[in-house]
Amino acid sequence: MSQRLSSITEALQALAALCPPLQRIESIPLVDSQGRVLSSDITSQANLPDFNRAAMDGYAVRSWDTRGASPQAPVYLDLGENALTIMTGLEVPEGFDAVVILEDTVVRGREVEVTAEVYKGRNVSSVGEDVKVGDVILKEGHRLRPPDIALLAALGIKDVQVYVKPKVAIIPTGGELVPRWSRPLKPGEVYETNGLMTKLYVRIWGCEPRLLGVVPDDPDKIVKAIKSSLDADMVIIIGGTSIGEKDYAPRVVGSMGMLLIHGIRMAPGKPTTLGSIGDKPVICLPGYPVAAFTALYLLARPSLKRMAHLPEAIPSVRAKLARKVPSRPGYVSFSRVVLVRDEAVPIMTSGSGILSSVARADGFVIIPEGLEGLEPGAIVDVMMIE
Amino acid sequence: MSQRLSSITEALQALAALCPPLQRIESIPLVDSQGRVLSSDITSQANLPDFNRAAMDGYAVRSWDTRGASPQAPVYLDLGENALTIMTGLEVPEGFDAVVILEDTVVRGREVEVTAEVYKGRNVSSVGEDVKVGDVILKEGHRLRPPDIALLAALGIKDVQVYVKPKVAIIPTGGELVPRWSRPLKPGEVYETNGLMTKLYVRIWGCEPRLLGVVPDDPDKIVKAIKSSLDADMVIIIGGTSIGEKDYAPRVVGSMGMLLIHGIRMAPGKPTTLGSIGDKPVICLPGYPVAAFTALYLLARPSLKRMAHLPEAIPSVRAKLARKVPSRPGYVSFSRVVLVRDEAVPIMTSGSGILSSVARADGFVIIPEGLEGLEPGAIVDVMMIE
Repeated sequence: MSQRLSSITEALQALAALCPPLQRIESIPLVDSQGRVLSSDITSQANLPDFNRAAMDGYAVRSWDTRGASPQAPVYLDLGENALTIMTGLEVPEGFDAVVILEDTVVRGREVEVTAEVYKGRNVSSVGEDVKVGDVILKEGHRLRPPDIALLAALGIKDVQVYVKPKVAIIPTGGELVPRWSRPLKPGEVYETNGLMTKLYVRIWGCEPRLLGVVPDDPDKIVKAIKSSLDADMVIIIGGTSIGEKDYAPRVVGSMGMLLIHGIRMAPGKPTTLGSIGDKPVICLPGYPVAAFTALYLLARPSLKRMAHLPEAIPSVRAKLARKVPSRPGYVSFSRVVLVRDEAVPIMTSGSGILSSVARADGFVIIPEGLEGLEPGAIVDVMMIE
Repeated sequence: MSQRLSSITEALQALAALCPPLQRIESIPLVDSQGRVLSSDITSQANLPDFNRAAMDGYAVRSWDTRGASPQAPVYLDLGENALTIMTGLEVPEGFDAVVILEDTVVRGREVEVTAEVYKGRNVSSVGEDVKVGDVILKEGHRLRPPDIALLAALGIKDVQVYVKPKVAIIPTGGELVPRWSRPLKPGEVYETNGLMTKLYVRIWGCEPRLLGVVPDDPDKIVKAIKSSLDADMVIIIGGTSIGEKDYAPRVVGSMGMLLIHGIRMAPGKPTTLGSIGDKPVICLPGYPVAAFTALYLLARPSLKRMAHLPEAIPSVRAKLARKVPSRPGYVSFSRVVLVRDEAVPIMTSGSGILSSVARADGFVIIPEGLEGLEPGAIVDVMMIE
């Protein structure tokens, strides 16, 4: 490959510049907002509770009436008069200011014996104790979880303003590709599956995928597919990234816009190419499945998560390496591992074509480019495959 | 409360007996199977690749022709005759058995100068190198991820057999509850939101929720709602679990089946009740939102995950406690925290009614019943709120 290969850091910097968090917003029903990210602070228009609420089962009283009450010196109140039966969550009626818990009472007929003094507000959630009118309940950038949604619903909020999900166009290219299961394969053909994998990950990562049909190795058709995709926030082209004579993707991107990174010191995934057309980022993934997977995780994932205002960290667990893993010096290497108790067992595999090595893996370990591999017993962070 | 309170361990044991992994299976389209769990091993009916595939760009050759080739002593092959241009991923034609990479060749007209010897199979993925006919590709119990789905698609698999998602009926009860946003609230009323929170969590946890409308504090109506829900794999009743005179849920469950656990030494969440009707587990959650949340996480979550064949561990991060947290001795306590860098800052709050304390929290820390709290500086696992 004649072009200078870039480091992963350079590639991520290029993508960071091309893929800032999207600012477009939309209003959606609260009940559909799980996992979405608020585009502005939410200020409450209501109090919660909006009445004085019993916090325990017992009797609503006027605290004044219980002065000095103790087991030795109980006070006696009239049931229904100055001691009202009340249950947790219900309103403490006007004129009453505390709740005596059941355990501190004995009821005989219409008489309630109170054996403990309560002060004003005791066992009562007063108006606004949880949320007050004007409180900022949740801030811009907050990802909505079920209890957040319950809280907003309790306050009477029906719709929320959130950032739109980034739209991602996915273009699988290659003359050897056959649309999935459309017909039996002839020798030399494979079903298109990288596009499917990419589409599923784009969705998991909080974005909206649009998977185009297979595009043959024909520059005009690739140009046409890209043109039809420029309404998206990112274009991912799969295949055609190497240096063979039919590898058109980078050339086409270069002709339509700018080629920024052509080849990255990562293994697998070296032929990954990055560019832009107008202000749209374009990632060209290698056609080899494990290389495509690696580039998706290390490059597309952080870019998409950032565009979607979501945290970029990959869920990981710490483990001890069971065996040596070799790596290609000067390249960031990506080693698939199986977790067996607290050990990470590397999956020995030859190439970037072996997708079953990913299916067998629980996660992967990233070996920095400065190292020549990792020794047995090394403590590693295993990034879990989502 | 007159009943003996149970420990969390007793409650979890009761649920473990009532909630084994479900054995019902269904066949679904592969493309819709992300996150689903295989109900049987998948054995491949095809080879991958099913042709000898070039693993690098270069020239397909007969390895025999390259014997002894080196930069000092190149061999010369006829382009299109005994050296065929080939790209990564394409078929190595019949009669050829290796690929010389581009970097080891110089082409002059129709002559290819080869400067490196290749052995048989070099740079070729042979038939079945990734997956062979008869290989077990993925095992029963495997949760399908995008690369797994891509692999199955590559093998021509269109449908997969998976375990059905557990069905969960959710019944919110309480005379003070008003269906969400159906009308403005009168004093003493609240919108029903625990059911919504539960429904969203049930879905996140890999199950299929069915949320019933609000049921008033009327034993006959609660019986009717439960009867209509016994087709589900679990029934979750919310509210009416305490000991006030209108707290019917446990009594109704006891009358229709068996009450196993009435009250748990957890804070918040003490009034949580567990029982069974026939072979159906029934969880009665307290109506107070934070208590409902706590019981959902500590009791419903592991049960649902187990029924769905999914891992039960809650994603967590390790952190240092920034301040002392008190806890109720003899109770498992559940303390909400905010993560600030690597510190867990407890949210000070009075009661189990304060849902905004959950909305403000990133996660929670569980304080075992044997302790009276945790000291500042303690290293804790913060369970992240999903």
